[in-house]
Amino acid sequence: MKDLMNEIDRLLKEKRYFEVKSIVAQENAADLAAVFDDLFAENFEEKTEFMILFRILPKDIAAETFAHMNTDMRRHLIGMFTDKELREILDESFIDDTVDLIEDLPANVVSRILKNSTTGERKAINEILRYPRDSTGSIMTIEYVSLHKDMTVSEAFEKIRKVGVNKETIYTCYVTENRKLIGVITVKDLFIAEEDNKISDIMETNIISVDTHEDKEVVGNMFRKYNFLALPVVDKDNRLVGIVTFDDAMDVIQEETTEDFSKMAAISPSEESYFRTGIFKHARGRIVWLLILMISATVTQLITDNYTSAFAAVPLLVSFMPMIMDTGGNCGSQSSTLIIRGIALDEIHFSDFFKVVFKEFRISIIVCSVLAVVNGLRVYLMYEHNLLLAMTISLSIIATVIISKMIGAMLPMLAKKVRLDPATMATPLITTIVDCCSLFIYFNIAIFVFKI
Amino acid sequence: MKDLMNEIDRLLKEKRYFEVKSIVAQENAADLAAVFDDLFAENFEEKTEFMILFRILPKDIAAETFAHMNTDMRRHLIGMFTDKELREILDESFIDDTVDLIEDLPANVVSRILKNSTTGERKAINEILRYPRDSTGSIMTIEYVSLHKDMTVSEAFEKIRKVGVNKETIYTCYVTENRKLIGVITVKDLFIAEEDNKISDIMETNIISVDTHEDKEVVGNMFRKYNFLALPVVDKDNRLVGIVTFDDAMDVIQEETTEDFSKMAAISPSEESYFRTGIFKHARGRIVWLLILMISATVTQLITDNYTSAFAAVPLLVSFMPMIMDTGGNCGSQSSTLIIRGIALDEIHFSDFFKVVFKEFRISIIVCSVLAVVNGLRVYLMYEHNLLLAMTISLSIIATVIISKMIGAMLPMLAKKVRLDPATMATPLITTIVDCCSLFIYFNIAIFVFKI
Repeated sequence: MKDLMNEIDRLLKEKRYFEVKSIVAQENAADLAAVFDDLFAENFEEKTEFMILFRILPKDIAAETFAHMNTDMRRHLIGMFTDKELREILDESFIDDTVDLIEDLPANVVSRILKNSTTGERKAINEILRYPRDSTGSIMTIEYVSLHKDMTVSEAFEKIRKVGVNKETIYTCYVTENRKLIGVITVKDLFIAEEDNKISDIMETNIISVDTHEDKEVVGNMFRKYNFLALPVVDKDNRLVGIVTFDDAMDVIQEETTEDFSKMAAISPSEESYFRTGIFKHARGRIVWLLILMISATVTQLITDNYTSAFAAVPLLVSFMPMIMDTGGNCGSQSSTLIIRGIALDEIHFSDFFKVVFKEFRISIIVCSVLAVVNGLRVYLMYEHNLLLAMTISLSIIATVIISKMIGAMLPMLAKKVRLDPATMATPLITTIVDCCSLFIYFNIAIFVFKI
Repeated sequence: MKDLMNEIDRLLKEKRYFEVKSIVAQENAADLAAVFDDLFAENFEEKTEFMILFRILPKDIAAETFAHMNTDMRRHLIGMFTDKELREILDESFIDDTVDLIEDLPANVVSRILKNSTTGERKAINEILRYPRDSTGSIMTIEYVSLHKDMTVSEAFEKIRKVGVNKETIYTCYVTENRKLIGVITVKDLFIAEEDNKISDIMETNIISVDTHEDKEVVGNMFRKYNFLALPVVDKDNRLVGIVTFDDAMDVIQEETTEDFSKMAAISPSEESYFRTGIFKHARGRIVWLLILMISATVTQLITDNYTSAFAAVPLLVSFMPMIMDTGGNCGSQSSTLIIRGIALDEIHFSDFFKVVFKEFRISIIVCSVLAVVNGLRVYLMYEHNLLLAMTISLSIIATVIISKMIGAMLPMLAKKVRLDPATMATPLITTIVDCCSLFIYFNIAIFVFKI
């Protein structure tokens, strides 16, 4: 990809446009968009180059490449487009891509886009923009093929041929009656049927659809489960208002997963990629949780304050604090990570609460036994057969592992129950909570064993 | 889903098979498979029920449902199938699903499957089984539609109609010559073209394909980038050997992501879901890393051992250890998580090493300034205007944040460079490393500030 970019960059600088043209004609739109994005990131100075490169692209590839570019690049290009060029690009674009673009642009650019859209497009764009950002409505497209139940197979083929060019997918067609969705039929079904079969006789009437206001994360899971190419989106009266295609579902899955990764590492999620996010935005996204966790650590600090007499008597106790805390944090995050992922994949539900807690309890018994024995032995051998110390450490590990796994298992499910995002109940928060519990237990066991 | 299962369970127990039949005819294969899996998980005793339920399914849905079931359920059913039933299911199944099944079954069941396959199927199965588990070859299917370059559009349609029923996708067709892949054409392209156009004139010759031995994770990223329905798989001589369809790519993406989540929480990844993994397997998958990290914590412990005089002089120093350690761990895991995810999504490469490190350095400067000021003030006000303590804490936080972000940024990229999985360089390992560094710095700053 870098090679391609450098080659194009060099040829453009030398004004060898004909050669550029023959190179870009060979490339896929997604790859071309990557070249644009890379050129844009590296050459903030010479911005006219992009316009020349864009005008060199064959018409049909230009709109597709445009759809694959990042927001900054697209905003820059729109600024340089003539109204005629903007209209051409919008004509060739799918409505859902235009909506995605509009959501990220400043108002003056948006109004220019709307001014250059047809009345129908404008109506459709406004309709999709009305849906909340996390809803299915916001990611759907209205460009699907609809058929009538009384059509024959050959009439259906004729319609697909006529309207199909501008539809995002033609492979699943939707049968509607008074705007209500009454059937679904795939092009494969049409191929298998006889030419004079009626659509109503061969269409699938057991339809799996999704509501416009359904959370888009649910739609991602439905695609994973059913392997559909597209899923119909209906309003509360079962009227067909749009479809979601598998590529948009894949994008949703990727976004949601990246969001989970961020939240689980105590970062406020950003919609931009790592490099496209500025350092101040990065810092802001990280400071919030760090501050919250740092202030929460005051509790651990106050707990420890109470036991100065304990580690004044046995200074070695301090040396084992990091190990006890880390083991607790790691055990808790193992459990919480598996539960959070299970919830995201719709494999674990709140109704499984006691099943999960009991399972984690049994696992923690096995884990803590092994860790306690290994560590007790290690301490016993390392610290001149100090049996009391070994006992303190082993007992503390047993308590810490069990408690941390219980907390790690319960918190994400409880969060889900009260409609918080389970992903925030991950390592950082659990570590902080587990620290308090484990140090409290540790010092009390020590006081008891050493009779301080 | 639970309701459906309970309803079917009840009707089966009351032997009201006719009613069951009319219910299952309404359902999607993926939902039916979920019912089978749930019934299987809850009723280990009455296993004949499943066979009755399975025999009630309409023939065409039976094979699809079978493909969606989990391995245990399928193994159980195969054990009860007659040879004739097994043959029917295999006939209706796609080769790649059969291969997935075979990979998880014991040898005696596999040989029974191979015995009931046709010679052609057996050859194809063996061919796919030859590829390494992580390669593209292992997830491809050989059931695609191939066309000849001299065909006309209407001849192509005729061929698709004839062979399409048994192909996993018909919407992208592949043009081969002497088994070499020379073009790709979609059904949409065929619809748009004239009936007497020649395939060679309208096919796409700029083909994006993937090598049989390419890592399947790469294929997942290609689907994300290009939005293809299917991707052709070629051998080293550019001969077409199979295709990967988008649903298999989605499965790969999900598996790889779940694997990353597990590794990042110090768990050896399991291919089974949370509930299907037994407690001993769960415990085994967690103990290994916990032990490694616990033993590594010995270093932190030995470092702390050296500073008993410091916290004997200022016992309050101990109380702030958890906060310093946790802040370091959280900062490091923020950076490492973003980098690991960026690498997985192919957005961050080793060539970006210095760019990333410099970016993280600048972010850490902002983050540590804010945290140091807030925390210094807090300590100053909480501990009776103890300026020395406040200074020690603030300076330690500055050093800890910068170092932990540097470590968190560098380790995943270095891991990628030496072909280790970046995901193992996550929170748990980084916490352990950061602990050593931060406590060492903390105690030394304390000794310096308090002149101990």
